[in-house]
Amino acid sequence: MQCVRAWRSLNYLCRVAHHRAWKRTQSHTTAARLDLSGIYPPIATPFTAKEDVDYQKLEENLQKYAKIPFKGLVVQGSNGEYPYLTVEERVEVVRTVKQSLPAGRLLIAGSGCESTRATIQLTQKMAAAGADAVLVVTPCFYKGKMDSRALIHHFTKLADSSPVPVVLYSVPANTGLELPLDAVVELSQHPNILGVKDSGGDITRIGLIVHKTKAQDFQVLAGSAGFLMAAYCVGAIGGVCALANVLGQELCELERLCVSGRWEEARVLQQRLIEPNAAVTRKLGVPALKQAMEWFGFHGGSCRSPLQPLTEAESQQLRRDFSSNGWL
Amino acid sequence: MQCVRAWRSLNYLCRVAHHRAWKRTQSHTTAARLDLSGIYPPIATPFTAKEDVDYQKLEENLQKYAKIPFKGLVVQGSNGEYPYLTVEERVEVVRTVKQSLPAGRLLIAGSGCESTRATIQLTQKMAAAGADAVLVVTPCFYKGKMDSRALIHHFTKLADSSPVPVVLYSVPANTGLELPLDAVVELSQHPNILGVKDSGGDITRIGLIVHKTKAQDFQVLAGSAGFLMAAYCVGAIGGVCALANVLGQELCELERLCVSGRWEEARVLQQRLIEPNAAVTRKLGVPALKQAMEWFGFHGGSCRSPLQPLTEAESQQLRRDFSSNGWL
Amino acid sequence: MQCVRAWRSLNYLCRVAHHRAWKRTQSHTTAARLDLSGIYPPIATPFTAKEDVDYQKLEENLQKYAKIPFKGLVVQGSNGEYPYLTVEERVEVVRTVKQSLPAGRLLIAGSGCESTRATIQLTQKMAAAGADAVLVVTPCFYKGKMDSRALIHHFTKLADSSPVPVVLYSVPANTGLELPLDAVVELSQHPNILGVKDSGGDITRIGLIVHKTKAQDFQVLAGSAGFLMAAYCVGAIGGVCALANVLGQELCELERLCVSGRWEEARVLQQRLIEPNAAVTRKLGVPALKQAMEWFGFHGGSCRSPLQPLTEAESQQLRRDFSSNGWL
Amino acid sequence: MQCVRAWRSLNYLCRVAHHRAWKRTQSHTTAARLDLSGIYPPIATPFTAKEDVDYQKLEENLQKYAKIPFKGLVVQGSNGEYPYLTVEERVEVVRTVKQSLPAGRLLIAGSGCESTRATIQLTQKMAAAGADAVLVVTPCFYKGKMDSRALIHHFTKLADSSPVPVVLYSVPANTGLELPLDAVVELSQHPNILGVKDSGGDITRIGLIVHKTKAQDFQVLAGSAGFLMAAYCVGAIGGVCALANVLGQELCELERLCVSGRWEEARVLQQRLIEPNAAVTRKLGVPALKQAMEWFGFHGGSCRSPLQPLTEAESQQLRRDFSSNGWL
Repeated sequence: MQCVRAWRSLNYLCRVAHHRAWKRTQSHTTAARLDLSGIYPPIATPFTAKEDVDYQKLEENLQKYAKIPFKGLVVQGSNGEYPYLTVEERVEVVRTVKQSLPAGRLLIAGSGCESTRATIQLTQKMAAAGADAVLVVTPCFYKGKMDSRALIHHFTKLADSSPVPVVLYSVPANTGLELPLDAVVELSQHPNILGVKDSGGDITRIGLIVHKTKAQDFQVLAGSAGFLMAAYCVGAIGGVCALANVLGQELCELERLCVSGRWEEARVLQQRLIEPNAAVTRKLGVPALKQAMEWFGFHGGSCRSPLQPLTEAESQQLRRDFSSNGWL
Repeated sequence: MQCVRAWRSLNYLCRVAHHRAWKRTQSHTTAARLDLSGIYPPIATPFTAKEDVDYQKLEENLQKYAKIPFKGLVVQGSNGEYPYLTVEERVEVVRTVKQSLPAGRLLIAGSGCESTRATIQLTQKMAAAGADAVLVVTPCFYKGKMDSRALIHHFTKLADSSPVPVVLYSVPANTGLELPLDAVVELSQHPNILGVKDSGGDITRIGLIVHKTKAQDFQVLAGSAGFLMAAYCVGAIGGVCALANVLGQELCELERLCVSGRWEEARVLQQRLIEPNAAVTRKLGVPALKQAMEWFGFHGGSCRSPLQPLTEAESQQLRRDFSSNGWL
Repeated sequence: MQCVRAWRSLNYLCRVAHHRAWKRTQSHTTAARLDLSGIYPPIATPFTAKEDVDYQKLEENLQKYAKIPFKGLVVQGSNGEYPYLTVEERVEVVRTVKQSLPAGRLLIAGSGCESTRATIQLTQKMAAAGADAVLVVTPCFYKGKMDSRALIHHFTKLADSSPVPVVLYSVPANTGLELPLDAVVELSQHPNILGVKDSGGDITRIGLIVHKTKAQDFQVLAGSAGFLMAAYCVGAIGGVCALANVLGQELCELERLCVSGRWEEARVLQQRLIEPNAAVTRKLGVPALKQAMEWFGFHGGSCRSPLQPLTEAESQQLRRDFSSNGWL
Repeated sequence: MQCVRAWRSLNYLCRVAHHRAWKRTQSHTTAARLDLSGIYPPIATPFTAKEDVDYQKLEENLQKYAKIPFKGLVVQGSNGEYPYLTVEERVEVVRTVKQSLPAGRLLIAGSGCESTRATIQLTQKMAAAGADAVLVVTPCFYKGKMDSRALIHHFTKLADSSPVPVVLYSVPANTGLELPLDAVVELSQHPNILGVKDSGGDITRIGLIVHKTKAQDFQVLAGSAGFLMAAYCVGAIGGVCALANVLGQELCELERLCVSGRWEEARVLQQRLIEPNAAVTRKLGVPALKQAMEWFGFHGGSCRSPLQPLTEAESQQLRRDFSSNGWL
């Protein structure tokens, strides 16, 4: 029996290898796909005391980020408070970032809205403002109806019309729903859908996405620093990590260790990043991210209401999560 | 012991009665509060084949609703697909409804946005367009940070500046969060906050809200027809029910039975409404509501994408849920 | 159209009435069903300092309960810490209660286990020890596999072999699953299944259970005091309420008010019971129930480990939840 | 600033290294800890047609498992249907396994019960029956009260009295609760608590457990094959995997690849195991595990009721999940 099973495994592996070779040929005949591999901070949006976008502070942050070996920037991921910006502000922030961006760096703009038509319109504006690709969150208000059928329809319509490639975005902590695996697999076959940012952190699912899309040259990005190393381990090619707004150099170092197979060193570094990451995301959210940015020399400042500043106790907790891991 | 307990109960009841009498005096000296009691359909928004708002069909629906003894209309509750409308469309739909509304009926407009500033701005536009009150959903994208502190801040800022009274709106099936009880109780003391629409359906919580706000003349509206009778039973004063778009006359009849204490008849009618209600809300959502509207002589039509039309199987299920209860 | 709809409603009501009359005739020809209507405390199990069952204190509690107009007692509902008792203890406690029970009162014994075979065996022992009926919780460890098919099979096998009638028991706060509605409806047709205790508190579901089983003379019991009045309102016929261990007289009074249609008075009393009830169930659990029992003249005492005594802060919270409603 | 931060990191790493060296010295002076590293099948319990334990088929399975390079066997993990066995059966199965176990292999017996006293008693019986260690699931019925305080008390009492070392067991899919991280960290300091089996699959949490217990020589086992490679990557030392009942050789191969740093090969193998693993756990459960065992030459057979056999459609789904990955 063992023998039969070995033969089946071999047979399976040959089929897969053959399919991948064929795919590679195919894609060579079409345009080269954008290579997303690397680390991206989903940049925060600084505000003035009156809660207006502070473009000057934004530019000062951008100058600092330019010195860190990021692959690019994500503008208006969840940490950019995009649901609190008007459409005009969303586009203007992207335009501002584009002007400061060093050559060779990617600008990925969040353009997700609840309706398909609004998402298509904003995507076009983002492309016109200089986005190299768009990151599109799942619509979520009617979550009971956002099944694979609806989501495949939404993203396909968008990808059909988008002037720039699309990256899917699943962030259940904010949306209350996960882009279903079968929808990801189906959508991975669209020539204008490049990959997915998965912020759910279910490493089994991430491994399975990599596995089931391997014939499509589909790129998986970890959506949080807490599971970045594990995601690389199972086949992800980069990360969009809130914590990169604060410890960007360190996350690029973690990337380098993973990519070069130095897993022992990677593990030590990864472990020290879990608590700081949890603090600025799941535990204390965007206000904590912005507070930590201040401590590390960036402009964070306060959030738009209804997001509230940290309480004193929360601020101390945040400090402990950095200091107990040797970062402060 | 039994005796001591009876005395304590009596003592408690006297204190409460005294407090309520005092409160009533107080509120008489200020402006009379808007009386919300009654049934409201949260009206659907009809679209053309190209997904534009179909104002003509909207008006035809409004003429039919005018013949049903509703207390008023809710415009841009969840069933109005408001997250799929632009700000301009949201205001224009309210303006259109206002023009057709019979005298004496209330227009309650949904004006909730994610940020406090956008909510304040839209509220002012809604008031200018003719809304008698606004219904304001909890912001929800950063759900981990939408605790009582943030939500009390949000609704207080809004109520402070709103030209019309505010009704709180908790709809966990869409937002993934419930407006916490302590926040409701605190906010009930704001003179410009009239009441709450609770769509969660937790009857224990609804009873407790009534109990803990009884000194404030705070008005509780059931957010769905499935628990309308039970809500009246524990002290609610009306309902905003998706099903009222379809079976409006029957829901007004249920109201009449509850208000006049004819509970046996009410129960028979209530029970026949549970399955149709579940079908057009939780189970099959807005597309089913709009399909059922067509069957009952209203304009429903299709939804904006990404909401998809019902499948054939879903449509049959919907029909069964109405016909097995004697409505079709 | 209105006319056609009225005719359909009438037609529906006639069919239902006819069916019920026929059913009543049928059941008259078989044995009379046990009438469960009324209030039951799911009694707590007192322990000695060494965590052995304290049969003497149990009997002292029973003597006090005998003076309260309960319909009967539930022995080994969730509040009886039954998962912490051995099979022998479970049976011995039932035997003890039976000996003290006044004539005419029902003894309903919890006999649910994870496996069908263990449940059948324990049910037979409970019947032999004097139980008039058994209350059988849904198995729950393999919750992913406890679908309607499995649960219908489980309860049918049990009811087929049980010497006493069976009451279904759905308590999602403890089991993490709800007995599905379609399973309840299917099981309601079994001649040896009398009713259901529903502790989930979803009043829409409770109303629907009453509606969809009305042809079966199926009896629905509210599983908690927080929604007792609302449950009566939609058609329940009694309640098994943890709080009846503490405020039994008051819950029997609430029953009387509901049954006699004195809804206004009922509402006042119901509202004062919600917070004390939440405190001894959802919020602070069995240790709080036992603490409150001590305050009201019963033997509560401590729980078996791993249930821990209340902290000082929890104890104060518990006291506030009773005193702020006039009970202490 | 970069410089200061580098210094802080260095300082942190030195402190940690020093602490670990000191700890190692300490543990050398006390008894050597049991080394758990490796792969374990949580063996299934075969039943006869009458649902009695089939000891003969059990032994035939054991003989086959003896040829696979497992570190040992887990007897009465969740896949052993232990909640459906009597205490006597639980002990007898362990005794039977002990008799067939090759020298040098570990027997880890599940001895968790709801109450602390029952868990202590069963642990003693398991040790007497030959268990080298016990695997103890979190009590879960009163989940609202199973906070860190209760669970730390439970496991500490147990570990204080247990004649064999204790492995903690967190399996939220069955219990509806996760052993809190702070409780794991606190309990890791108990000299008789060796490690934890974590079946939740949250890789960020697993990495953090490794990180925060590294001073304690605490051993983390992955509780499922779906995230085995990722768990090794972040510092786990083995796995207890349902799928090892079926594809034991392959899981031992995956272990070998991970331990020897051959991550590329590991990834290919890991990816092919995700769907078969999901099928026999989360998706289709123990009945599917037993069905797959039959296909691969082991005795699976049917489950105790209420677990039902697979439907024909489920069986085909199961087959597809194996065959599409090249295993059938």
